[in-house]
Parts: sequence; C-alpha cells; structure tokens
Amino acid sequence: MAKVLVVFSSDYGNTQKMADAFKAGVETVPGAIATLRHAEEVTQDEVVAHDALIVGSPVHMGSPDWKVKQFIDKVCSPLWMKNRMIGKVGGVFCTGSGYGNGGGGAELTLLALLNNLAELGLILIPLPKNTEGYAVGGLQWGPYGRSAGTHMEQVGVLPESLKTSMHHGANIARAVQAIEGKTIFVGET
Amino acid sequence: MAKVLVVFSSDYGNTQKMADAFKAGVETVPGAIATLRHAEEVTQDEVVAHDALIVGSPVHMGSPDWKVKQFIDKVCSPLWMKNRMIGKVGGVFCTGSGYGNGGGGAELTLLALLNNLAELGLILIPLPKNTEGYAVGGLQWGPYGRSAGTHMEQVGVLPESLKTSMHHGANIARAVQAIEGKTIFVGET
Amino acid sequence: MAKVLVVFSSDYGNTQKMADAFKAGVETVPGAIATLRHAEEVTQDEVVAHDALIVGSPVHMGSPDWKVKQFIDKVCSPLWMKNRMIGKVGGVFCTGSGYGNGGGGAELTLLALLNNLAELGLILIPLPKNTEGYAVGGLQWGPYGRSAGTHMEQVGVLPESLKTSMHHGANIARAVQAIEGKTIFVGET
Amino acid sequence: MAKVLVVFSSDYGNTQKMADAFKAGVETVPGAIATLRHAEEVTQDEVVAHDALIVGSPVHMGSPDWKVKQFIDKVCSPLWMKNRMIGKVGGVFCTGSGYGNGGGGAELTLLALLNNLAELGLILIPLPKNTEGYAVGGLQWGPYGRSAGTHMEQVGVLPESLKTSMHHGANIARAVQAIEGKTIFVGET
Repeated sequence: MAKVLVVFSSDYGNTQKMADAFKAGVETVPGAIATLRHAEEVTQDEVVAHDALIVGSPVHMGSPDWKVKQFIDKVCSPLWMKNRMIGKVGGVFCTGSGYGNGGGGAELTLLALLNNLAELGLILIPLPKNTEGYAVGGLQWGPYGRSAGTHMEQVGVLPESLKTSMHHGANIARAVQAIEGKTIFVGET
Repeated sequence: MAKVLVVFSSDYGNTQKMADAFKAGVETVPGAIATLRHAEEVTQDEVVAHDALIVGSPVHMGSPDWKVKQFIDKVCSPLWMKNRMIGKVGGVFCTGSGYGNGGGGAELTLLALLNNLAELGLILIPLPKNTEGYAVGGLQWGPYGRSAGTHMEQVGVLPESLKTSMHHGANIARAVQAIEGKTIFVGET
Repeated sequence: MAKVLVVFSSDYGNTQKMADAFKAGVETVPGAIATLRHAEEVTQDEVVAHDALIVGSPVHMGSPDWKVKQFIDKVCSPLWMKNRMIGKVGGVFCTGSGYGNGGGGAELTLLALLNNLAELGLILIPLPKNTEGYAVGGLQWGPYGRSAGTHMEQVGVLPESLKTSMHHGANIARAVQAIEGKTIFVGET
Repeated sequence: MAKVLVVFSSDYGNTQKMADAFKAGVETVPGAIATLRHAEEVTQDEVVAHDALIVGSPVHMGSPDWKVKQFIDKVCSPLWMKNRMIGKVGGVFCTGSGYGNGGGGAELTLLALLNNLAELGLILIPLPKNTEGYAVGGLQWGPYGRSAGTHMEQVGVLPESLKTSMHHGANIARAVQAIEGKTIFVGET
C-alpha cells in the first residue's frame, strides 16, 4: 500500500492540473492511491493518515502562497511538535510565470516547501535529470509548471511539466512502498 | 550491506571529528561500513562504488569550503551528466563558529550541499527533531557542529553534535538498507 | 527625512521587542521616524508612504509566519505589479528558539523575507560583522533574536540582539537619507 | 567617481559576454569605470580599491563554479575578517542552460553569491521588474543569461540578458555615486 496526500493551492488552475497529474502518476503504481486537498481544507488527521505528503504552490513574490504557509503553520506545526510525521515521504512542486526565463522564484518556492518538509522529518524525494520531461518541466527539487513562454506570452503549463509530475508522483509512491515497515529513524520518545 | 562514503574538508579538525562520528554511527548498523575521504582526494570510482554519499564542510563566508565545491564540480558533475548517482542516498553536515548565536551561515551551507545532492538524484535524509542531541547539534537538514559559545568563546564541537552525527550516520545506513534492491526512480536511459 | 515602516508579527512578544528596538534605532538618526505595524493591519497606502520597509517574523517551521506572507501576498504583491516600491530601502529580522544551537531556520526565514523585498526592487541593507552586538545577535542578512540558550532553556531575546536591532534600524535610516533624491534605477514605465 | 570591479569565471564565453555587458553598462554612467577580472587572477588589493563588487558565475550543479568560491574564500574572506569591505556596493549575475524551463539552479547560484556579499557587508542592489529586458533576462537577484531554449536547444545568451546586464551595471554605478562620501554603517573598529 501507499497512501499519498497532495496538498496545494491554485489561482488559475495550473497548480490544480499539476496536482491532478501527480494523482494520476501515484495511481499508476499498483497498491498506491492519492488524495488531493486544498491547503485551506486539509486536517491534521488527514495528514497523519497518509504515508507521503506532497505540497504544491504557485510562486507568489518568490515564495509559496500564504495559504500554503498557513497550512504548514496551523496543520503541520502541531504534528511537528509531537514528532508525528517523522519517516514519512515528502515531495514538492510549483507553478509560475517564468519571469527572467528562469522561473522567477520557482527554486526558492520549492526550497521553502522542502525546508518545511525537512523540519517535519520527511524523507525527501528529488527529481532526477533522466525523468521523462525533465528538460522542460523538472528542477532538481521537483516538477515546475511554467505558464509562460520565453517572452512571457501565456501558454499554460506544458505537457512535459504534467508528464514530469506524473513520474514524480509514481517515484514517491514507489519510495513509500520501498520503505514500508522499515525503521529508518531511531529517536527519543 | 550498506557502503557509505563521507567526503569532507576540515580546517582545524572540527569537521573531521564530525566525520569520524558519522563513521562510528554508520558502523553501529549491522552490515554497514563507512569510508572517509578528504574532498581533494576522492575519485569518481569511489563515489560510484558506494550506496550513500554524505558531504560535510566548514562554513566559509556562509557557504561550503571551495574545496568541497571543487569536489562537486570535478568529481560529481561528470557523474551527474551520466545519471550515475540516481537513487543513492544522501546526507549533509557542517561546522562553524556560530556567529549571531544562530549558525552564521550554517543553514545556507547545508542547503547548498543538499542542493548539489538533489541535482545528483540522491534521496535526501533529513534530521528529525527527536534525534538524541538535536537541541544542541541538529538542524533540519543535518547535524551542525558549532565551535563557539553564546559570546563566541571557543569551546569546540559539543558532544551533542557528535552524538547527533552518529545517529544521522546510522539513519543513513538504515535508509540504504531499506531501499536496497528496490527501484524508486524510473527514468530514460 | 527618512520614514521607516516596520511590519512584523509576534507570538510571545520577542519579535515585538525587536521591532521596538528597530524603531528606537531609526529615531536616533536626526530627521528619521519609524512606524510599527502588525502584519495583519498594514495597508498598501502605508507601505507606499514610507521610504523603507523592514519586515520581521518569528521562525515558524523554518520560514516566516504565514501572517507575514499574507502581508507580502495581499499588500505588497499589488504594489510589485505596479512597480511602486522600486528604489526604496529594505531590511529584515527574525526571532526563534535556536534549535540545533544554530538558529533552527533563522537563515531561511531571513532569506525568504529578503527575497520578497528583492522582488519589490528594494535596496537591501545587510548587517555588517562589526556592528555592536553582532556576535550574539547578528546574522549576515539582519538581526536575529534567539530566545533560548545552548540547551534550549528559555532566556528570552538577549540584550545584544536588541542592540543590534537598534543599530540596524539606524543603518537603514541613514541609507534612506544617503540616497534621498537620487535616481538609482532607470526602468520602463 | 565610481570604480566597479566585475569578477567572474566563464566556461564557454557566455558569462564573459554578460561581464562585458556589465562593463559597458557601468561606463554609460558619467564618471564610472569598470574593471573585469577572472576569479582566478584577482587580488585583495584590487577588490579593496573598488567601490563596488559584482560577481558572476555559470551555474554548476545548482551553485557557483568552484573557482568563484575559491575567490570568495581566498581573496574576500581575509577582507571580511578585517571589515574592509563594509559599505561598498554589491551585485550578482549568472548564466546557465535553463533545465526545467526554470533556470536549473540559477536562483540558488545567485543567492549563494549574494549571501557571500552580504557577509562582506555590501549594500545589495536587486534587479527591478521594470528593467528593460527583465522578462527574458532578469531574476529578482540579478541578471540571468540562459543559454538554451524551452527544449534545451542551444541558443546562447539572448540579447535581452545582455541588455538587462547593461542596465544593472548602470544601476550599480549610480548606487555607488549616490552613497559616495556618506556613512551608512556605524560599527566597532
């Protein structure tokens, strides 16, 4: 089994599309299921009930949407206090307009999310360069859905970004299954 | 089995002490062995021959020692090109004087190293809050050996930082064993 | 003249104390005044009416409080769209418990805030090493008020952190006065 | 007057082109001159003799070229010890292939450099969104010269990236002139 929770916010539907692709990717792995939740509706119980947490956000001013940070602070922080998330699996993704032909804050957004997941004690799954679609939709930390072309003409999230998201969802489901039942972290209780 | 390679540089011996503690921690896990290598002497073949790569550095101007970056650029970068490191396990640590009662660049040093490992496609092992010694020697990304007290009086790396490093070494060895023989990433060849 | 706006959130009063110290520091500079505003109450008009924006936050899960990000997204982002903040002066600060004897996320919190200010086009004032109190209360990006001792015993923000904040407030006021009336950025309108 | 030093490394000439554009931009400002130096040849005396330091690097494995870090550690670190750089002006730029349609490490490369400059106590000049060429060649931290198209076809650094670099060079020269003779930081000696 592998129960994967995908938590995200979306302004215009691009991040939602990426989240849908993650779900589809997770569910290509036999025995794995994914649940999607908006950042504003997810509960502590839901987070704890899953084996993996994937967080996605649009890039806002070079960092995650405040609603995603609210989820981290209100829902995840109490679980951090109680060491309830340690040893689960984590992954991240984001979308953005692509200012500067370089992401316009995508890396720092992914990093901020990954940092939150590291605090929780999640095993972090990166996105390897040989993943299908990586050249267009992959950064080292996770999939990036760029919504504009070189000169900022709006094109929407490209198919490669969705493809990469599918593969990353499957990667994360396989990671959950690989470590299922194993104890990796030995900590104080 | 779990073969763990610890690559580091050290100015005054503090980072070396942390590396030694990692090795001791790895080898508390049955079937796991660790090899220590200075950043300037390690070869591509050695890196490829191990299941996990742990990188440690003193904090220099808020980022890793240039000799560690030289190792990343000269030894690891060609392996990145050939997708030779994907799916191995990675971890990081650092030492520093603790300027500002807050690490003086420790976080960005750990992050820079972790970023390099993410590029390589390594599964990243964070340091959970409930690890023994964490309050004194643990940051979310990995162990931190602070060498000065609150007012910058030199005290050397505290025992808790070495304790945390031991545990993190063992965490990483167990992570290697957990995923041994499993395929997590499916990529283009 | 130099009108400095300090926007912050505070959980237990430590960040508020740092904000108060900033205000006191700003107002040691002849002709400079500082206004304090909670992140949840400040308006676009107030932000635009000031020459400098200083943002402070407690460290929550290794990044700024969601209420501070909400301020960035709701109040600052529309000003970014209209290029209304370009050429003003910016600075940052944070408080935290000091997990890991190293800040426990302080650097990434400061960095996240500084990144938001860079997006806005603010000239960023770092905190030099020779500032009074720096060894205890200063990181390269700005003052850090650590609230716990080496072993996480609660001690509250140390006097050095407040001293550093005062000096940094004065630095920022002087930076505003230095560039007053000068055009540094030439952009499209 | 404004004497600007541009320190860089270059693999295939793209970063050199950006450096040349910076120099041209600096020298559009009356009274300003720029000097270019390879990271491996620059001396402490040269760094101290200039009013501004601009550092540029290709993106290697998501962070600056090791030769640039060697410059920071060997040439700049002793100047940091002696507080010799405080109050000068700093800026950064980078080039890269653009993996993931998002920079492939450009942001973290710029950030790493900016962090080094913040440690030195340099006033950091960001790149405003309304700068000519920004949509194609500008990130919040500084110009980005992307050398590949959406699908990683090699196109070389686009004219917009060079245009943005010119403007940023001029911004930095004007910043130097604006604060010339002013004392912003008051520190211990």
